[in-house]
Amino acid sequence: MGKSLAVSPLAPAAFPDLPVIAGVTFATAAAGVKYQGRTDVMLALLAPGTAMAGAFTRSATRAAPVLDCQAKLGGIAEEGAAILVNSGNANAFTGQGGVDAVSAITAAVAQATGVPQARVFTSSTGVIGEPLPYNRITAALGDLAAGQNAEGIAAAAKAIMTTDTFPKGAGAEIDVDGQKVRIAGIAKGSGMIAPDMATMLVYIFTDAKADQVALQRMVSEHCDRTFNCITVDSDTSTSDSLLVAATGASGVDVSDSAAFNTALHDLMRDLAHQVVRDGEGASKFVEVTISGAASDDDARTHAMAIANSPLIKTAVAGEDPNWGRVVMAIGKSGAAADRDRLSIRFGDVEVAKDGWRSPAYSEEAAAAHMKSQEILISVDLGLGEGTATVWTCDLTHGYIEINADYRS
Amino acid sequence: MGKSLAVSPLAPAAFPDLPVIAGVTFATAAAGVKYQGRTDVMLALLAPGTAMAGAFTRSATRAAPVLDCQAKLGGIAEEGAAILVNSGNANAFTGQGGVDAVSAITAAVAQATGVPQARVFTSSTGVIGEPLPYNRITAALGDLAAGQNAEGIAAAAKAIMTTDTFPKGAGAEIDVDGQKVRIAGIAKGSGMIAPDMATMLVYIFTDAKADQVALQRMVSEHCDRTFNCITVDSDTSTSDSLLVAATGASGVDVSDSAAFNTALHDLMRDLAHQVVRDGEGASKFVEVTISGAASDDDARTHAMAIANSPLIKTAVAGEDPNWGRVVMAIGKSGAAADRDRLSIRFGDVEVAKDGWRSPAYSEEAAAAHMKSQEILISVDLGLGEGTATVWTCDLTHGYIEINADYRS
Repeated sequence: MGKSLAVSPLAPAAFPDLPVIAGVTFATAAAGVKYQGRTDVMLALLAPGTAMAGAFTRSATRAAPVLDCQAKLGGIAEEGAAILVNSGNANAFTGQGGVDAVSAITAAVAQATGVPQARVFTSSTGVIGEPLPYNRITAALGDLAAGQNAEGIAAAAKAIMTTDTFPKGAGAEIDVDGQKVRIAGIAKGSGMIAPDMATMLVYIFTDAKADQVALQRMVSEHCDRTFNCITVDSDTSTSDSLLVAATGASGVDVSDSAAFNTALHDLMRDLAHQVVRDGEGASKFVEVTISGAASDDDARTHAMAIANSPLIKTAVAGEDPNWGRVVMAIGKSGAAADRDRLSIRFGDVEVAKDGWRSPAYSEEAAAAHMKSQEILISVDLGLGEGTATVWTCDLTHGYIEINADYRS
Repeated sequence: MGKSLAVSPLAPAAFPDLPVIAGVTFATAAAGVKYQGRTDVMLALLAPGTAMAGAFTRSATRAAPVLDCQAKLGGIAEEGAAILVNSGNANAFTGQGGVDAVSAITAAVAQATGVPQARVFTSSTGVIGEPLPYNRITAALGDLAAGQNAEGIAAAAKAIMTTDTFPKGAGAEIDVDGQKVRIAGIAKGSGMIAPDMATMLVYIFTDAKADQVALQRMVSEHCDRTFNCITVDSDTSTSDSLLVAATGASGVDVSDSAAFNTALHDLMRDLAHQVVRDGEGASKFVEVTISGAASDDDARTHAMAIANSPLIKTAVAGEDPNWGRVVMAIGKSGAAADRDRLSIRFGDVEVAKDGWRSPAYSEEAAAAHMKSQEILISVDLGLGEGTATVWTCDLTHGYIEINADYRS
C-alpha cells in the first residue's frame, strides 16, 4: 500500500458508537510488520467461559493461520482465549516457515497473557508469499498485554485495515427475555472479495452466553446469507476468517433466542455491506435480487453471474442502464433460464419482459435510477420459486489504480 | 461505439495477404444499421456443393440468428449457400421481432441471390435488446448481390467489426497429397470474450472438399482448444458464431487429411489469438499453461481461474510479478490443488516452488519478464498428468473506458 486512498464515497458518515462488551478487552500496536506510522497489530483477550464460533475461506491454498484457527474452534475457552491479528502480511503460501510463524506467535501470546496456546487464534492479512517477520509482532506483546482496555474496539478496527479506506464496525443492544445483551463487531476487507469469505477478517463479540454448537450453527447459517453473498471482484482470499466470541458475561443464555439470532444476522449483514461499500474503487453499491428461479441454488448462480460480470460492473460505473448485459450474464451463468420468460428491473423501472424490452420501457427513467449511489438490479426468471440476493459494487478506474501497483 | 479507439498495441503489423478461395465471393455495404460512415454488412456467396460446419455460443439466452444457424447446419449446400453478417446490432433478446427479422433477411437474401433460404446463414453483432432495423439491410441486398468479388475478404473483415481496433485475418496454403489447398479466415471480437465462443464471429473458407461430418468433427475439436480457450473478461456473448465453409472447388478431398486438420487448427488458433490481442484495453498478451493437474478438466479450470482473475489481470497491467495472486486463483478455482506441491513460473523465472517462494527467486528477473508484451504464466500442480493452455490479456483503464459508456 504505497499511497493512502481517498475514503470511499459509499462509507458511513462515521464509525458507530459500539457498546462495550463485558468479558473482552483490546489493545493495538504499531509493530512495523510492513506499514510505517500506523497500528498494524491488535490483541483481544476473552474472559474464561467464552464460546468461539467461526467461518473460514474454502480456498485450497488457505494460509497457515486459517488452518490453525480451524483446528482450534469448538469447545468452551475455560481459561479464556485470545485473538491476535496483524495487517501488512498475510503469512500465506509461506511454507513451513508460515506454520512456524503461527506457532511462535501463539506461544508468545500464551506466555504474555496466560491464555493456553490452544486457545490463541491468529489472523494475518496483506501480501501473500512474503515471510512474516513475526519477531516484530512478538516484540510488541508485552505492550499489548499491558495495554488492554475494554473500550479499544474502534482502535482494533483500524489496526486490521489494509487497503480499506475506512474502519468497519456495527453494534446492537437487544432485549432477550427482559435482559440486555450486547453485540459489537469489526471487519476489514475491500478487495479480493468473493465467496467464500474473500479477503475479509471479521471479529464479533457479545456478552451473551451461548452453547458453542448453537452459536456455530447460527454463525454458519448467517454467513451463507451475508458474507458469502458479497463480491467485489470474484477473487477469493486465502486468509478470510470470521470469529464470533460469546463471553457469557451478561449471564443471558441466547442459545435458543430468536431475537439474538436475528440481531446477529443483521449485524453480520451490516458488516458485509460495509465491506462492499469499501470495495476497491467502488462508486456505487449494487444489490442484485433474483426471483422465480428453478431453485435457490440457481438463483444464487444467476445473481453471482450478474454481480461478477465486468461488463455489468462497468456499465453501472458509467451509469448506463445496459440491461442487455444482464441478459448476457443470465445466459452465461449455466443455471436454468428461458430467454422469453425473463423480466428485468433497474430500481422500480421494468426494462425487459417476456424476452424483450418492456413495452413500458423508459430510457430516461432507467437512466435516472442508474445515477443513484444505490443500484438495484432485479431479475425474475419466471420458472419457479428460487430466490437469492447478493451485493456488489461497480468496477471503476479506481480498482485498476489500486491493484495495478499494490505491491510496489 | 461513440469514439474510435486507438489500434491495440498487440495488433499484427498489417492485415495478411489472404489466398483467394475458389468458390466464394464477397461484398460489403454501408447500410447504416447503427454506425455511420463505415461498412456494416457483408454478404458471402458460396458455390454449390459447399459443406458447412460450425460452432456456437452455449448461452441460454442466445440470439435469434444463432438459433437459426444451428438449425440450418449439416448436409451439403447443393444449390450454394450464403452468409450475411451485420455489425452494430446483435438482434439478441429482441423477442418475436428478432425471429421475424431473421426470416425477413434470409428470405430477402434468397430472393436476391437464388440461394435457398434454408442455406442462408446470418449473424448479427453489436448492442443487445434493440430491435434490428432489418429494412436497412434488405435495402442493400441488390448492391451486395451485384458487387460480389473473389477478392473481397479483407473488406469483409472490416465490415464485421464492432469495438475491434483492427480487422483479423489468417490464411494458409498447404499441400495435400501433392495438391494445393487454400484456407482463409476472418474474425471479429474484442470484449465479452470467454468460453464458450464469447462475442466472436469467425468465418473460415477453404477450397478443400470435405465430408460435412468429418469437417464438423475437426471444427468442434479445434474450437475446444482455440476459441474456447481464450478469455478477455469472463463474459460470454449471446451471439457467437463460427462457420467453416468448404467449397470443394479445388477437388482435393481433405476429410482424412492430417495436413489439412493441422492447418485448420493452426489457423483457428491464430484468429483466436488475434481476438485476445484486440481485447478491450489490452496492453499485454498472456499465455497461461497448467501442467501436473489431476486431470485435463482440472487443468482447464485452474487456467481459466488465473486468466479471469481481475487481480492477476491488473497485476499484469502493472507489470507486477505478484505470484501470490496466482496462488489465490489456484486456491479459489475449485479444482484439486495441494498448496505445498505448487510451482509457478513467470516466463522462465521460477517464482514459487513446494509451497513457498522459490529459493532461486529473483524479483528483478521476474519483474523483467513482466515488462514484456507477451507474458507467460506457468503452474505445475504436482498432482498428475493434466494439462491446459489458455490465452488472455491484461485488465487496464482502457477496458473501463470502453465499457463504461459503450451504449452512450
